[in-house]
Amino acid sequence: MSKPFVFEKPLGMRDTLPLLYETKKKIRNKIERVIQSWGYQFIQTPTLEYYDTVGSASSTLEQQLFKLLDQQGKTLVLRPDMTAPIARVAGSSLKEVTYPLRLAYDTQLFRAQQREGGRPAEYEQIGVELIGDGTGSADAEVISLMVSIFKETGLKDFQVAIGHVGFINSLFVDIVGNQERADILRRYLYERNYVGFKQHVKSLQLSSIDKRRLLSLLELRGGKDAIAKAYEVFGESDRDGTIEQLAALWDVLESYGVTDHVKIDFTLVRHINYYTGIVFEAYGSNLGYALSGGGRYDQLLEKFNRPAQATGFGIRLDHLIEALGMTEEEPEITCVIFSPERRSEAIDLAAKKRREGERVVLQDLTGIGDLDAVTERFSEVVYCIGKAGKGVTS
Amino acid sequence: MSKPFVFEKPLGMRDTLPLLYETKKKIRNKIERVIQSWGYQFIQTPTLEYYDTVGSASSTLEQQLFKLLDQQGKTLVLRPDMTAPIARVAGSSLKEVTYPLRLAYDTQLFRAQQREGGRPAEYEQIGVELIGDGTGSADAEVISLMVSIFKETGLKDFQVAIGHVGFINSLFVDIVGNQERADILRRYLYERNYVGFKQHVKSLQLSSIDKRRLLSLLELRGGKDAIAKAYEVFGESDRDGTIEQLAALWDVLESYGVTDHVKIDFTLVRHINYYTGIVFEAYGSNLGYALSGGGRYDQLLEKFNRPAQATGFGIRLDHLIEALGMTEEEPEITCVIFSPERRSEAIDLAAKKRREGERVVLQDLTGIGDLDAVTERFSEVVYCIGKAGKGVTS
Repeated sequence: MSKPFVFEKPLGMRDTLPLLYETKKKIRNKIERVIQSWGYQFIQTPTLEYYDTVGSASSTLEQQLFKLLDQQGKTLVLRPDMTAPIARVAGSSLKEVTYPLRLAYDTQLFRAQQREGGRPAEYEQIGVELIGDGTGSADAEVISLMVSIFKETGLKDFQVAIGHVGFINSLFVDIVGNQERADILRRYLYERNYVGFKQHVKSLQLSSIDKRRLLSLLELRGGKDAIAKAYEVFGESDRDGTIEQLAALWDVLESYGVTDHVKIDFTLVRHINYYTGIVFEAYGSNLGYALSGGGRYDQLLEKFNRPAQATGFGIRLDHLIEALGMTEEEPEITCVIFSPERRSEAIDLAAKKRREGERVVLQDLTGIGDLDAVTERFSEVVYCIGKAGKGVTS
Repeated sequence: MSKPFVFEKPLGMRDTLPLLYETKKKIRNKIERVIQSWGYQFIQTPTLEYYDTVGSASSTLEQQLFKLLDQQGKTLVLRPDMTAPIARVAGSSLKEVTYPLRLAYDTQLFRAQQREGGRPAEYEQIGVELIGDGTGSADAEVISLMVSIFKETGLKDFQVAIGHVGFINSLFVDIVGNQERADILRRYLYERNYVGFKQHVKSLQLSSIDKRRLLSLLELRGGKDAIAKAYEVFGESDRDGTIEQLAALWDVLESYGVTDHVKIDFTLVRHINYYTGIVFEAYGSNLGYALSGGGRYDQLLEKFNRPAQATGFGIRLDHLIEALGMTEEEPEITCVIFSPERRSEAIDLAAKKRREGERVVLQDLTGIGDLDAVTERFSEVVYCIGKAGKGVTS
């Protein structure tokens, strides 16, 4: 095994340098303010959890989990998502707080990667969980909150696709006869491989009516029109009323005034396997990957001994910042350079400027190697040097 | 191996619930503002680092490192401190930026624990590193910044003890003859076992003059008086001028106006082995453990191919909050409860209140199980229920 170079970071790990740090902080604060204004309360959970509790309840693939053994020989995981840890907290420390619970988080998540240059192995996600409310109002609330967040950050060009796990599942099982065959169809949709989907449908031993119904699914994307068309083609076979749920959701989203950014997409399939109802994902027009995603998960809380219907979403801060296309601005920092005999004067000057809200570096001249290279990093340089009375601004 | 209960967290891991979360955030923001106003820039580094780069450069005991293997078979560690990762960044991504560098961080650190009920295995530390400046001004700057931070958070009763690694080391080697014997003496001081120190000194084969000199060390704590006394007793043997460094430091700290909170402590020994010069620790009067600590480390940067003198400190956010003795305040949250026929009105009302800066939960009546238990959690409840026109405040 060759040793890594001293500068190397583990696969998929990144440093955040000062300019990006400040950009992230600005956006993060905006998001947190919106989430708090909707009455959600933030919590924080440990980076490490037991594999047997949170790790196995998560939807992350085994090979993407960072695992380690603790000193007692138990397997730990680096938090792969926050839905399971929040469910753990709802079932333990917060078990006396009556449902519905509105909780939020802003944290690092971890996914082990197979190769460099790919996805980050650690990333920041901000999200909410609304636990113990099975109404359509809860679905509409989290989707509208997510849209409000994007608007507040200044994002203009984005769209939220909304689907229903139950619609796709029961339709496919109905038509192709069993779960295994249905899963093949779902896989094509999950990969957005619509050409493959069509070819696969054509190859199936089905009546031409059923084939047409499956293919027409691909056109079921839009607003009220898509819902109307879904009723027309699938209304009779939709025994669980999933189309009606989506129709009702649309009406509430109209009351929230967010339908400009929303479309119903009956083909939407998410990779996370704990979803049970309405699911959604947001996209920016200039990005090839989702800004955020979420949905209803009505069975996860049972695993933590406090059954509840629940819904929520998570926003990828890195993807959002990319979608915003922000230009990072150098902050204005003043440098007060002093020689030792005028140190006190320099200290007082720096203190005064800081009180006035400036960012001020106070620098001993004798601590500088290359004066030109140092001073060019600052927006202003003040010299308190030599025996003269006043600082001079360069 | 028994399975953990579903609610269990790994040894030493904690959840942060909403009230503490907001307290932490408030203090964290104050600290970050002060640090920025002194011209330091924040960066973020990965949670996982290679053991061979950052793990082995850290001062954490092997058994306290959380280690794991990546998929390529290399050993990773959960970041045990931030000094080594920042040194890595200074030597790589920021290698074109001329020294001195003023960097800051606010991050989680990890120390594996042997038993429950003890120290946390994960904790938040906020700190700065001033890299590439070997002057006494740099030492004074970081100490004064630390004092300013404590004052800004409202902490009243705290004291910073300042010592010098070189003073203790050369004095002990000088008197007892070799490093091994000197280390035994240092260990007593590190453990603050002054009784043990005295007994050990008395047991040594030394002249009565040398014994008196060693014992008089325990009285060398205070301001200018302690420095004067140190000159008197140890002035001749202090070949590296460490007393003079501390005397000069004291004068600068007077210019900064922070000496009310500072004392020179010639017995101060820190556990971290990379320190090379002036070291310091802060204590609150009501706590048995340090609020923060730091010092000069002039040899660490060499390991990252960019030699530099450096100094810095880290503040334990959990300890600081404990020292502040803050009472957590429930935030004011309004709950607007609606029945479906008045949903639009409720949505508009909530939006209006949020725009005015209120925190507002919007709750569908049909999503509530126990109305009394839900409403008692809020500071105000507004009902939009039934067919009547206006919301009623309870």
